[in-house]
Amino acid sequence: MTEPLAPGSVIGILGGGQLGRMLSVAAARLGFKTAIFEPGGDCPASHVANFHLQAGYDDTAALTRFAESVDVITYEFENIPTSALDVLEKLRPIHPGREALRVSQDRIIEKDFLTGLGLTTAPYRAVNSEDDLRAALDEIGAPAILKTCRFGYDGKGQARLSSAEDATQAWADMQGAPSVLEGFVEFSHEVSVIAARGANGEVACFDPGENVHREGILRTTTVPARLSASQRTDAVLLAGRILNALDYVGVIGVELFVTPQGLIVNEIAPRVHNSGHWTQQGCAVDQFEQHIRAVAGWPLGDGGRYADVVMENLIGDDMDRIPGLARNANVAIHLYGKADVKPGRKMGHVNRVILS
Amino acid sequence: MTEPLAPGSVIGILGGGQLGRMLSVAAARLGFKTAIFEPGGDCPASHVANFHLQAGYDDTAALTRFAESVDVITYEFENIPTSALDVLEKLRPIHPGREALRVSQDRIIEKDFLTGLGLTTAPYRAVNSEDDLRAALDEIGAPAILKTCRFGYDGKGQARLSSAEDATQAWADMQGAPSVLEGFVEFSHEVSVIAARGANGEVACFDPGENVHREGILRTTTVPARLSASQRTDAVLLAGRILNALDYVGVIGVELFVTPQGLIVNEIAPRVHNSGHWTQQGCAVDQFEQHIRAVAGWPLGDGGRYADVVMENLIGDDMDRIPGLARNANVAIHLYGKADVKPGRKMGHVNRVILS
Repeated sequence: MTEPLAPGSVIGILGGGQLGRMLSVAAARLGFKTAIFEPGGDCPASHVANFHLQAGYDDTAALTRFAESVDVITYEFENIPTSALDVLEKLRPIHPGREALRVSQDRIIEKDFLTGLGLTTAPYRAVNSEDDLRAALDEIGAPAILKTCRFGYDGKGQARLSSAEDATQAWADMQGAPSVLEGFVEFSHEVSVIAARGANGEVACFDPGENVHREGILRTTTVPARLSASQRTDAVLLAGRILNALDYVGVIGVELFVTPQGLIVNEIAPRVHNSGHWTQQGCAVDQFEQHIRAVAGWPLGDGGRYADVVMENLIGDDMDRIPGLARNANVAIHLYGKADVKPGRKMGHVNRVILS
Repeated sequence: MTEPLAPGSVIGILGGGQLGRMLSVAAARLGFKTAIFEPGGDCPASHVANFHLQAGYDDTAALTRFAESVDVITYEFENIPTSALDVLEKLRPIHPGREALRVSQDRIIEKDFLTGLGLTTAPYRAVNSEDDLRAALDEIGAPAILKTCRFGYDGKGQARLSSAEDATQAWADMQGAPSVLEGFVEFSHEVSVIAARGANGEVACFDPGENVHREGILRTTTVPARLSASQRTDAVLLAGRILNALDYVGVIGVELFVTPQGLIVNEIAPRVHNSGHWTQQGCAVDQFEQHIRAVAGWPLGDGGRYADVVMENLIGDDMDRIPGLARNANVAIHLYGKADVKPGRKMGHVNRVILS
């Protein structure tokens, strides 16, 4: 893409969840129209989009119609079926590109990619049988964590092993799916870098946020994170190396463990990321607009931050806290318009602006 | 309204322009669905709303259908035909209420209301003929400005008089419409207060912004405004008095002239206001969300400001400046999705965050 996409052009978004919703609002803010491709009805993104094409990823005719109705395609989740991408990419540019999806769709390929760049990950071994698992445990040691290579999110598709005795159950939990055993990393805390690369190769990073998870689900992200100046530099350089290696266009989320020996990459997500939601309150250009800018060939925001923020996810029954939260000054509420409250379901988030 | 409206409820918005668009996004952020009533097709608000009912304000069946599909009704402009309000208010609550519309739809009624509260306005006289105009000019003196009582905005329906010689032309410009002659006020600058009143009577004000107009159209609003502490207090108290007198629910814009003798009320607008757009960058709860909160019976944000901001409108060919503006760090761009660029047409705005 050489020319920036003009306002009035249509951005196609694969996936109609909360990330698609916030991408759609950001695109509208830049004067774009938006089209959502999502099998589900009444999806969060459709509430704030121009068009919603409700069809499955195996519906070639619908995919074709969708692609032909938009100027560029992006997505809110990495597990887009390859067959759908084959249809779409013949018709319109897709950002971020296939390579980013290929790498991030499979934990083994991702870790091979990262270590190939000279970055540090937790020790890992591919596991395709209980025997593999026992051999991997011998090498890596316990405790360790077994994860399916594909389709895991929010702690789903994972089993923790305290000792070799847990191997049979853990492997059974994977239901035969190709998996990876990851060694435990002794880390003080987790941070993530939300970084972006533009169509012209420029890179911009937001200030790293510090993440707290519970039951495998992100609960809070706080900026600024507890990081030294050199750790901050390392985080930014590392994100830039990943983006350049993938010839990436868009926003990426890079989760990092902070250890005395340096930063260890946990995982990458080729999309806007829950740990970047704080940017909605702290930055002139938030991660959603940053992503749309990249995808549309616009100049990126510089990632500058002008407020301290604590982002907290509202999960399941946290919705009951809304009346109280609404009475808090300096708390910005972001709800996703999901009809049904379910345990573990991300219903919204709040950004608490910390005034100095 | 005693119970706050639950997320998932539907907010009906009369008017599909940029204010409706930004109200719709704010409502979505709180988990509401939105329905736009707007005669025009492909209107800015419809791009980010759940529903758009395209019909005229004289279409009783459409108005009825609209009201029955929503939980509460608000609006983005004050010139809603009385006959439409008659249909709508029988079916659903409308906020702000009829009294605010009655007062603000007519410049004479508005000025009578304001002076009745003990507030100061420019000297004014009702004008219904050229003879009236000459008599009014004798009393008020020149220079002065003649305005139609109704339907004026962005400098439309106005004529300036340098002397009595301009009377014939000025009256002709009004095309026979009931008008008001306003005396000139010697003011150093104009500010506006964006204030809100909740369903329970609580009042919250944003920090006053300083406005610069050109050719009758707002160009920039800057916060903080040049105001002394006592002027700031006066501005807030005055806005509160207006809100309480109208038993108001929602956001109001109050334009004020700053003079050595105190603050003079220029006009009020019973809706979110162009001079409050800066709140999108400087506040946890912006004017659009504040309005939705009030209308939905939610607690209000406290109006606290955590950044200095200069808002600049993008008018007509200013759209050509977008590529350059997009390269500016700390500039947040807000475009309205209008298909056609026209001279004098508000196409978008930018909020420049000023870092200390």
